[in-house]
Amino acid sequence: MGIILGVAGLAAVAALLWAAYATYSTARKDPGNPRMREIQGYIREGAWAFMLAEAKVMGITILILGGILWALFYVEVALAFWIGAGLSMAAGFIGMNAATLANARTTQAVRGSMKKGLNIAFTGGSAMGMAVAGLAVAGLVFVIWLFRGEFDPGILYIHTKRIFGIPGAEVNFIKGALIVSAYSAGASLVALFDRVGGGIYTKAADMAADLVGKVELKIPEDDPRNPATIADNVGDNVGDVGGLGADLLESFVGAVISAIVIALYVYVGRANSDIQDLVARFGLDATRLEQNFYWFALLPILYVAGGIVASLLAVAYIRLTPREKNMQGILMNGFRLAALLTAGFAALCTWLSPLNFIPFYSVLLGIVSGVLVGFISEYYTSARFKPTRELARMYQSGPAVGVTEGMAVGMMSTLWICLVLAISTVLAYQMGGLLAVAYAGLGMLTFVGIMVSMDSYGPIGDNAAGIATMAKLEPSVRAKTDELDSIGNTTAAIGKGFAIGSAAFAALGLIAAYLWSAAGRADEVHVPNVPIISPEVGGLVVAGLVVGAMVTYVFSALLIRAVSRTADVMVQEIRRQFRENPKIMAGQASPDYRRCITITAHGGVKRMVLPSLLALIMPLFVGLMFGRYTLAGFLLGALLSAIMLAIYCGNAGGAMDNAKKHVEEGHFGGKGSEAHAAGVVADTVGDPLKDTVGPSLDILIKLMSVVSLLFASLFPVLPFFLRK
Amino acid sequence: MGIILGVAGLAAVAALLWAAYATYSTARKDPGNPRMREIQGYIREGAWAFMLAEAKVMGITILILGGILWALFYVEVALAFWIGAGLSMAAGFIGMNAATLANARTTQAVRGSMKKGLNIAFTGGSAMGMAVAGLAVAGLVFVIWLFRGEFDPGILYIHTKRIFGIPGAEVNFIKGALIVSAYSAGASLVALFDRVGGGIYTKAADMAADLVGKVELKIPEDDPRNPATIADNVGDNVGDVGGLGADLLESFVGAVISAIVIALYVYVGRANSDIQDLVARFGLDATRLEQNFYWFALLPILYVAGGIVASLLAVAYIRLTPREKNMQGILMNGFRLAALLTAGFAALCTWLSPLNFIPFYSVLLGIVSGVLVGFISEYYTSARFKPTRELARMYQSGPAVGVTEGMAVGMMSTLWICLVLAISTVLAYQMGGLLAVAYAGLGMLTFVGIMVSMDSYGPIGDNAAGIATMAKLEPSVRAKTDELDSIGNTTAAIGKGFAIGSAAFAALGLIAAYLWSAAGRADEVHVPNVPIISPEVGGLVVAGLVVGAMVTYVFSALLIRAVSRTADVMVQEIRRQFRENPKIMAGQASPDYRRCITITAHGGVKRMVLPSLLALIMPLFVGLMFGRYTLAGFLLGALLSAIMLAIYCGNAGGAMDNAKKHVEEGHFGGKGSEAHAAGVVADTVGDPLKDTVGPSLDILIKLMSVVSLLFASLFPVLPFFLRK
Repeated sequence: MGIILGVAGLAAVAALLWAAYATYSTARKDPGNPRMREIQGYIREGAWAFMLAEAKVMGITILILGGILWALFYVEVALAFWIGAGLSMAAGFIGMNAATLANARTTQAVRGSMKKGLNIAFTGGSAMGMAVAGLAVAGLVFVIWLFRGEFDPGILYIHTKRIFGIPGAEVNFIKGALIVSAYSAGASLVALFDRVGGGIYTKAADMAADLVGKVELKIPEDDPRNPATIADNVGDNVGDVGGLGADLLESFVGAVISAIVIALYVYVGRANSDIQDLVARFGLDATRLEQNFYWFALLPILYVAGGIVASLLAVAYIRLTPREKNMQGILMNGFRLAALLTAGFAALCTWLSPLNFIPFYSVLLGIVSGVLVGFISEYYTSARFKPTRELARMYQSGPAVGVTEGMAVGMMSTLWICLVLAISTVLAYQMGGLLAVAYAGLGMLTFVGIMVSMDSYGPIGDNAAGIATMAKLEPSVRAKTDELDSIGNTTAAIGKGFAIGSAAFAALGLIAAYLWSAAGRADEVHVPNVPIISPEVGGLVVAGLVVGAMVTYVFSALLIRAVSRTADVMVQEIRRQFRENPKIMAGQASPDYRRCITITAHGGVKRMVLPSLLALIMPLFVGLMFGRYTLAGFLLGALLSAIMLAIYCGNAGGAMDNAKKHVEEGHFGGKGSEAHAAGVVADTVGDPLKDTVGPSLDILIKLMSVVSLLFASLFPVLPFFLRK
Repeated sequence: MGIILGVAGLAAVAALLWAAYATYSTARKDPGNPRMREIQGYIREGAWAFMLAEAKVMGITILILGGILWALFYVEVALAFWIGAGLSMAAGFIGMNAATLANARTTQAVRGSMKKGLNIAFTGGSAMGMAVAGLAVAGLVFVIWLFRGEFDPGILYIHTKRIFGIPGAEVNFIKGALIVSAYSAGASLVALFDRVGGGIYTKAADMAADLVGKVELKIPEDDPRNPATIADNVGDNVGDVGGLGADLLESFVGAVISAIVIALYVYVGRANSDIQDLVARFGLDATRLEQNFYWFALLPILYVAGGIVASLLAVAYIRLTPREKNMQGILMNGFRLAALLTAGFAALCTWLSPLNFIPFYSVLLGIVSGVLVGFISEYYTSARFKPTRELARMYQSGPAVGVTEGMAVGMMSTLWICLVLAISTVLAYQMGGLLAVAYAGLGMLTFVGIMVSMDSYGPIGDNAAGIATMAKLEPSVRAKTDELDSIGNTTAAIGKGFAIGSAAFAALGLIAAYLWSAAGRADEVHVPNVPIISPEVGGLVVAGLVVGAMVTYVFSALLIRAVSRTADVMVQEIRRQFRENPKIMAGQASPDYRRCITITAHGGVKRMVLPSLLALIMPLFVGLMFGRYTLAGFLLGALLSAIMLAIYCGNAGGAMDNAKKHVEEGHFGGKGSEAHAAGVVADTVGDPLKDTVGPSLDILIKLMSVVSLLFASLFPVLPFFLRK
């Protein structure tokens, strides 16, 4: 165990050192003329203010919840929860900090050379990419090392605790599993708050800025006369950067944790024949499990350490490639390099381990399906392919047809993505049961370092373009930053595919871990078997499926409303400013940017609480009232609906956005045409779908699963009205 | 058996006699002035032409499929399939015929008195209502009587057949179950064709008429200068009447059949202890099952016969009530009367039967949940309540916000509806297992006669209003027909709630019947037990869930596209007519209505084939390739997604429509305001959702379930790669 943790810890430290260096080196670059500095200052200030306000709300919630965990279980569980939450928050702050430093400096750099601009933007992005990977692994290593006694196979057993000393209120659990689950739950909760809050912020600002700016006053994007323009740029940093960082940290942690928890249960139940069969599939017999247990549980951590090294090498490759052309090619090559190296490291680790190659094949399966889902998403959302071009053509028939057709594209895109997910689930399960499913989920996330770097590079490019316009720099600068921005769109599309695919697998892994941990006492640990319909569980699982599906719809509705209500308040404010001070429109007076920033920040923080609490409370309520089987149905129903809605929302929104851009490039009448007006409406409808609802659903389902996992031991097997 | 079938047959004959009388008496009324007759002539001709064209495509498909059933099983199975299909088609034609007679006559009658107008419209609607109930029951009684040998408990056993004489290709089934399933499958397939074809027709015409008429040229709805206006009115008759008739006939048949099939399996497996436990819950012991078997299987038919009598009495009440005020009150009282009487008859039949009151309580549970779902739907979609008013307010912020908020309302509406469905599923299952679930599904449909009458009354009112405008009658006539029309909207909302609720339960009942029939040979018939996750079935059920969910999304996308593509062709045609002949706009020349009718008819017939075949082929493919467990997952995944999407689409579309009407009534600026323009866009987006996608999804899931039920015996238990 020591060696594995040591290697992983070293990789994590290397990642964190890079993150620190990337931030430092970005900060040293030239931030441009005073006007650029001023704008950057506004954005930075707004982003810090919002994330601090958010952190305050989160901090209180997390403190209380940790206290509850302490009271219910042990102080170690609470500590792990706080550590997970703290690291997730830190990832968001590090990313946002680097991004708000890099934006103006990227603008300034492209005035010299495109590659220099790319380097600054990408380095800024890599600060978060590496911070996410480093913090996740460092935290995990730290937690396992700190509470190493709980992971010692010599003493690993099912604990029994009487809750609050109440007679009869006994629960059984493996303490180590509880500790890592709490770590993951802390990270998830912060991620959901960050994604929801940031998502509401960014889309409300964007919507309001577009509605008054583009639609009513016909002024261009990022026009400095628009009071919402700074808030719009702040949104990119808190939603697309800060939210993304916390999000991927939690995906990553969730994927690793699900494999570890299942491994712990397999170990505890090793006396049972069905579990011995499962272990045999990995090339071990159960008598040898004691010596080789660590490999089973910690192989995921080694894979991930390999992924960090691969990502660092890819970052170096991207920075050091000197050519000035085909920037997108450089990024994609870096991405491919990371994927190949990660696979190579994983193969090496597997070969060194006493297990056979099933874990490696599962991880590979995950990587392949992730790439496939990414490509399919790109097909449906990029103007290079038929669906989006066709959508752009339909924009000519007006906004209603445009929105309708955009929805159809999103629905259609579920076809191949779901087939890929279904096939890989069956293949993984055939290879090694639910454990292999968890490994496959991990596969998609092993090279999270490079993925987050590429993903958060996008909003930096977007901000850089915004600053170029707001600071009224020469048009050639905006053209160059626009090119950087558009490269970001493609990498973001692939990243989104990975996010959905990995969320589906990570959630399935967490649900699997929940099913294992809900199985009960040591002598009862078996390979899980959940009936949809059987005389024992009655209609409970079916009812759970329906309610789980419903919760994702209600959650989505709350988010959509939060965006449109916040945007509505903001629209009134923008109109007020223009009305009360005509000098703003004439360009003779500065609008009150701060007022708009305050409105969105307030809306984001206030409206993130209800949906986030819903995600926290619903599984607890269902589990406590209706038992473990109902909760299993609930989680699967929620997963199914969340995947479908996330794919639909992400790709419908993406296609609507890119079809609009396609029109703006001069097709079907170009800017100012009927088709363009329809495209603006469709894009505004699609924006909250793709940037608020879709990404939040990915976290929702993981948070609900991990909460179920954490509290599984508290839930009765059957509800009171079915107990005999 | 003879008595039960005799009573049911008599009730069916009474219903059919009423349908004949209602059509005859409608035809005798005054159809108004020559202009009205001319318009009515166009509508009637267009509706007949489309439904005949549709029938041709269906006829060929059904002939071939029946032939396949004959080859695979027996001629009786093919005959039952053809009878079911034929009756479903007949229901559509009878309804459409009566409705296209009643429309102009209603317009003419309201010039005298509102109540006379209501009477004609409602009598026209009741022709279809009673035809649906009568045909469904008559057909069922006829099929059971014709093949009575197969339902004789003396000889009831599991058949074994070697398919095409191929050695090893043996399948087991109960022949009676196969016969009634084929009857139901025939009805479902025609219903899907009718709903999809009619739904595409009606919404493409509506969308095109609105896009060019209201949005581009700013001419009012139903303006005779608009070449699409007749097609729009034809659409109401083929989609909302013809499609609805076939739809509810199949729901009704599906609900009855699922109970009968389960009862047959229960009877065959009566030697097993788990089935004896189930039978005991209904107050019987298994030794007495032989004598009382008919009551078990045929009690549903008796309930339904009671429902027919109750509906006839309610129709009489509505027609004979003389008062001129509060028409809606009259209709609602009739509805309540039918519900009460049906419950009373059901209680009586149960009391006369040797069973206890569990079947009655289940049916009652179904009725109560149907009413609740109806009321919840009304809350979310009527301008009398907050969600729709709030939506109308949001229209002031433009079309994008309007569509977004409308989607949120639809998503939010799943909250209480899903809770009602979940709770009633659990309660029904607790009372009497899957059999009680099937009975509950039946409950919602027992008074189908009055429900369909009230539902198809709506489009007649709508048509009457259209004819008033097109024939340029005095404005007071339009005001009165508009009132009739608006009453229709409320009854339609309740009807839609019932449609969704009953579809959910009927589909669950059919899936339950599938699970029972997939259980295998006589000595293997047990209460079904399907694991979501277990070592035996691996990830197959989960993969099935994902693929099933995906199919509903792809199906929806195909429908949305069919509507928008057909509308697009039509928009070009309308623009062409106005461009090439300016006299049309000036009102000096008649536009070419027929051209538009041909375009929509062509689009409807052509584009209904792919989605309908998808519904037919997918369960067969999944079942044959991946076995019975995967198919169980597939059906549940499809059911879950279909319910969620159907609720969401229905209520989002309903709220968007009614919020627009609320604005038109003078709120938030009234007609011509910004809010109204936004409302028109939102309504156009919502229309295909609520009138094409939503209702078709209800049938999709039932058709897929009944196809699975029919072919269950052909599917392997596990796929080839899992067999040992």
